[in-house]
Amino acid sequence: MSYEAPLRDMQFVLYELLKGDEVLPALPGFEEASRDIMDAIINEGARLTQNVIEPTNAPGDREGCHYDPESKSVTTPQGFKEAYQQFAEGGWTGMSAPVEYGGQGMPHLLNTVAEEMMCSANLSLGMYPGLTHGAVNALLGYGTDEQKDYFLPRLISGEWSGTMCLTEPQCGTDLGLIRTKAEPQADGSYAVSGTKIWITGGEHDLTDNIVHLVLAKLPDAPKGSKGISLFLVPKFLEDGSRNSAFCGGLEHKMGIKGSATCVMNFEEARGWLIGEPNKGLQAMFVMMNSARIMVGIQGLGIGEAAYQVSRDFAKDRLQSRSLAGPQAPDQAADPIIVHPDVRRMLLRQKATIEGCRALAYYTVMQLDISQHSDDEDARERADDMVQLLTPVVKAFLTDEGFFCANDGLQLMGGSGFTQDWPLEQFVRDARITRIYEGTNGIQALDLVGRKMGMNGGRSVKRFFGMVEGFLKENADAPYADQVKAASEKLQRATMWLMQNGMSDREQAGAAATPYLRLFALTTVAFFWSRMALVAQQQLDGGTTESDFYQSKIRTGQFFIDRILPQADALLAEIESGKDSLMALTAEQF
Amino acid sequence: MSYEAPLRDMQFVLYELLKGDEVLPALPGFEEASRDIMDAIINEGARLTQNVIEPTNAPGDREGCHYDPESKSVTTPQGFKEAYQQFAEGGWTGMSAPVEYGGQGMPHLLNTVAEEMMCSANLSLGMYPGLTHGAVNALLGYGTDEQKDYFLPRLISGEWSGTMCLTEPQCGTDLGLIRTKAEPQADGSYAVSGTKIWITGGEHDLTDNIVHLVLAKLPDAPKGSKGISLFLVPKFLEDGSRNSAFCGGLEHKMGIKGSATCVMNFEEARGWLIGEPNKGLQAMFVMMNSARIMVGIQGLGIGEAAYQVSRDFAKDRLQSRSLAGPQAPDQAADPIIVHPDVRRMLLRQKATIEGCRALAYYTVMQLDISQHSDDEDARERADDMVQLLTPVVKAFLTDEGFFCANDGLQLMGGSGFTQDWPLEQFVRDARITRIYEGTNGIQALDLVGRKMGMNGGRSVKRFFGMVEGFLKENADAPYADQVKAASEKLQRATMWLMQNGMSDREQAGAAATPYLRLFALTTVAFFWSRMALVAQQQLDGGTTESDFYQSKIRTGQFFIDRILPQADALLAEIESGKDSLMALTAEQF
Repeated sequence: MSYEAPLRDMQFVLYELLKGDEVLPALPGFEEASRDIMDAIINEGARLTQNVIEPTNAPGDREGCHYDPESKSVTTPQGFKEAYQQFAEGGWTGMSAPVEYGGQGMPHLLNTVAEEMMCSANLSLGMYPGLTHGAVNALLGYGTDEQKDYFLPRLISGEWSGTMCLTEPQCGTDLGLIRTKAEPQADGSYAVSGTKIWITGGEHDLTDNIVHLVLAKLPDAPKGSKGISLFLVPKFLEDGSRNSAFCGGLEHKMGIKGSATCVMNFEEARGWLIGEPNKGLQAMFVMMNSARIMVGIQGLGIGEAAYQVSRDFAKDRLQSRSLAGPQAPDQAADPIIVHPDVRRMLLRQKATIEGCRALAYYTVMQLDISQHSDDEDARERADDMVQLLTPVVKAFLTDEGFFCANDGLQLMGGSGFTQDWPLEQFVRDARITRIYEGTNGIQALDLVGRKMGMNGGRSVKRFFGMVEGFLKENADAPYADQVKAASEKLQRATMWLMQNGMSDREQAGAAATPYLRLFALTTVAFFWSRMALVAQQQLDGGTTESDFYQSKIRTGQFFIDRILPQADALLAEIESGKDSLMALTAEQF
Repeated sequence: MSYEAPLRDMQFVLYELLKGDEVLPALPGFEEASRDIMDAIINEGARLTQNVIEPTNAPGDREGCHYDPESKSVTTPQGFKEAYQQFAEGGWTGMSAPVEYGGQGMPHLLNTVAEEMMCSANLSLGMYPGLTHGAVNALLGYGTDEQKDYFLPRLISGEWSGTMCLTEPQCGTDLGLIRTKAEPQADGSYAVSGTKIWITGGEHDLTDNIVHLVLAKLPDAPKGSKGISLFLVPKFLEDGSRNSAFCGGLEHKMGIKGSATCVMNFEEARGWLIGEPNKGLQAMFVMMNSARIMVGIQGLGIGEAAYQVSRDFAKDRLQSRSLAGPQAPDQAADPIIVHPDVRRMLLRQKATIEGCRALAYYTVMQLDISQHSDDEDARERADDMVQLLTPVVKAFLTDEGFFCANDGLQLMGGSGFTQDWPLEQFVRDARITRIYEGTNGIQALDLVGRKMGMNGGRSVKRFFGMVEGFLKENADAPYADQVKAASEKLQRATMWLMQNGMSDREQAGAAATPYLRLFALTTVAFFWSRMALVAQQQLDGGTTESDFYQSKIRTGQFFIDRILPQADALLAEIESGKDSLMALTAEQF
């Protein structure tokens, strides 16, 4: 039942598909990221997540977090503190943080591999250090030298943790409605007052201090989202005194029960401005964007874990005979993996996960290039891909992570529904990933409303250029024809959006979700073609791992045969326009 | 937040679409089922489920059932007993049971309407009387007069309840693997010994006695599923003594926590054979078939409840401005129902639920006709439709009920994920409906492997005849062209199955799930065309309910524009055949 990091699949994407062992060490600052070093780090991550983290997952879900109203403190489930300490001591909290602040300075891509393993092993526990990354990024981008020197080493070491305090009862998606206030004080600090909800890790017992990054409004701030500033509000101040930032209670949630989701009350808490006044949203989006990719990785990690458990179940569980006649005649029944419909559910998971891993790792490698390349054009090109693909990674990987968990649960029948198996927890935990850090509907609007039009549609053009370039050079690649057809459908949908969505934003809104999905299916099909080509070359070259590479080609074929055809339905949905959505009056619902 | 029975929608299907107020009273035995009587019963059902049943739903989920190992007894959540008593006293447990045994002798269709309301209000509580139906049906079909006279009145009055004891640790889908034994005794009874798992209502405190229907093997039984017999094993025997049928514990489940899912230990418990030796599976399928439609109704009921809550939320929640400019300029933001993507999620629910209601009620009315008509041909035709559509109703309505609950949760954002709202419970509760009473994969195999071929494919031919007949007579009906196109795709898929699935059962297995879904989409589109035609006629005739009928036509259009296009993807998936499923060796997973 326990998790085994899919090292071979990860290496396949990292080295064989993306050539990360060539590209990354060639980037200034990543000279040490050789294949040996990366493999050593990944192997150590596998050991930690399998042996230390994963065993806390099911017990943590049963126990949950506990709030003590007396002390306003939160206790995490038994074992979380010890596991977190090992995680921090191993240097994982600072894997891709700058060396000058105590980090390991490794590529984001390597950190992403570790995050995938962490999310497979225990999503709830993984969220505490995950949120710290956001705080580190905001400080790196907008903090003063003093703030950086004081906070960054402690956050990067994992000694302290961070939060992102955005949501209030009356505002989630629409941050323009924020009411939390920040009054300037004589000493240059601010008195922050207001209530924030759904604050992950707002209070807990894993670290000595918690650094809150809080969106609030200055007294004279303009209305709406242009009047929001970002403040840093530590739980404990530099002199050791307790700041007035207290947890008022925990949310009771469907899943991620080991993650403390807090109501946070700030009562004239001392805080410091991060970045410029009224430019808080911009700083927050620096945190959000990397957080969005990370949430996509959460979907991937849960999907992988669900696949492993249900695959092993399908090989073990004896029930009924194969439709082609007994396969295990010496036993009372055949293992259910012989049944086509069980294979359909397994392959839906396997084909989606492996394709999504390629998409996600590719996107994160572009992030590394965009930040580290010494070639300005390469940086720009890479950044274009990161911008364009971030909402796709977030939304598609979390939707599919949830569907994979459901496929796994379904094929296990009644067992999947009981708490004797981890599937039902995976489904509950995965459910939130489609919502937080911007709902998947918001991701789709980000794609069609912002990312597509950026720099005159340059990113989208470059994306199609990449696909066409590959197909031109590799006309014989597996599934090349189907990828070409899908790409043409996506181009047609893109044209439709350009023609209709620019002049009528409701048309863009009506098309957004199916468009993002069409984009994702096309992109994943493209990566499947590339992966299958690599596999084919290995097979042609007489590899000793023929099972592994054959499995790649066959799994890709499943994606092409049984998932990619959805492209037609999505295109039809997009081209049907907004009418059937907008026709009903509110009363007619 | 509370549930309101969708009376107008129900009446639309019952009377305006299906003409149930003409068809049913014309059937022998249903003379009293006039529209007035039916309306009175439905209104009373709405009152009971809204005011008495629904308030127990969320508390029942929090509290769950409790097992006392000392007494081996189970306590249901607070309030369940009182609510059940009102349900039984109102005559709901015997709504469609024969008058001679104390039932009300009303059509199944009316009972189905009541079941939908019950499942919207509290699925867990609804399962206790739901299982009793199965026991009643088995006794009606296979019991001796003595057994009927003794058990039926007590089961029908709700004084006692029933169970279905099929599953064992080593056998779920494959009942041939059953190990429970029944030894004949001198007095004609049997000593039943074995362990059954996942027994709904195996032990609880709602009724004075529990009547277990148990699948077991006689000492000399043939191997496999042809050697299974059905036994009736009451918790308390006629002399008041406790039978040796004890609950050994409760399952800990993802959802339906108010439903007691028991491990049942039979230790030489006294039982009586129901029906013939070794013909138990046949008797069990009598129970299963009506249970399968009921499980479909569970999906419908939860979907409706999810729609209502999320629709009301979408009208109340203020967040962001409409893409077409402020709609509620006097407020801080617009209600989120203005957003196309929110409408997409609402309409996915509304269009699916209303279409599924038509499909389900139609199927159940055919069940009434098949049992009550005095015209043999009409009975046969109706039975053909029931046989064919039962797996479709079970699988499609439960898949969609789960998806609707997820759509509702999604559009509510973080709120949907918290226990402050009922959505997360709906998702957890709905999850099991896709599994029990035969997983949805098994339903698909039933459709392609059994129902399609019955009587030389007569049912399928009659189904296509019905669709074509409607289209011929109503070429101008809304969406007639799209229904015709979908029907042609389904016919093509059917032909593919006939040509490939007969000779190679793995081809049938590989096509089964997408085929069932294609069948369901086509059927629901057909019913949408019929409903929209009724609505159009009302609008043309100058109805005073123009909002209601306009909403029908617009909602149907959404189904056609944005759901039906999936038919193409499903057809492609079917025609891709088994190769991409079967190519991988077990090791390659």
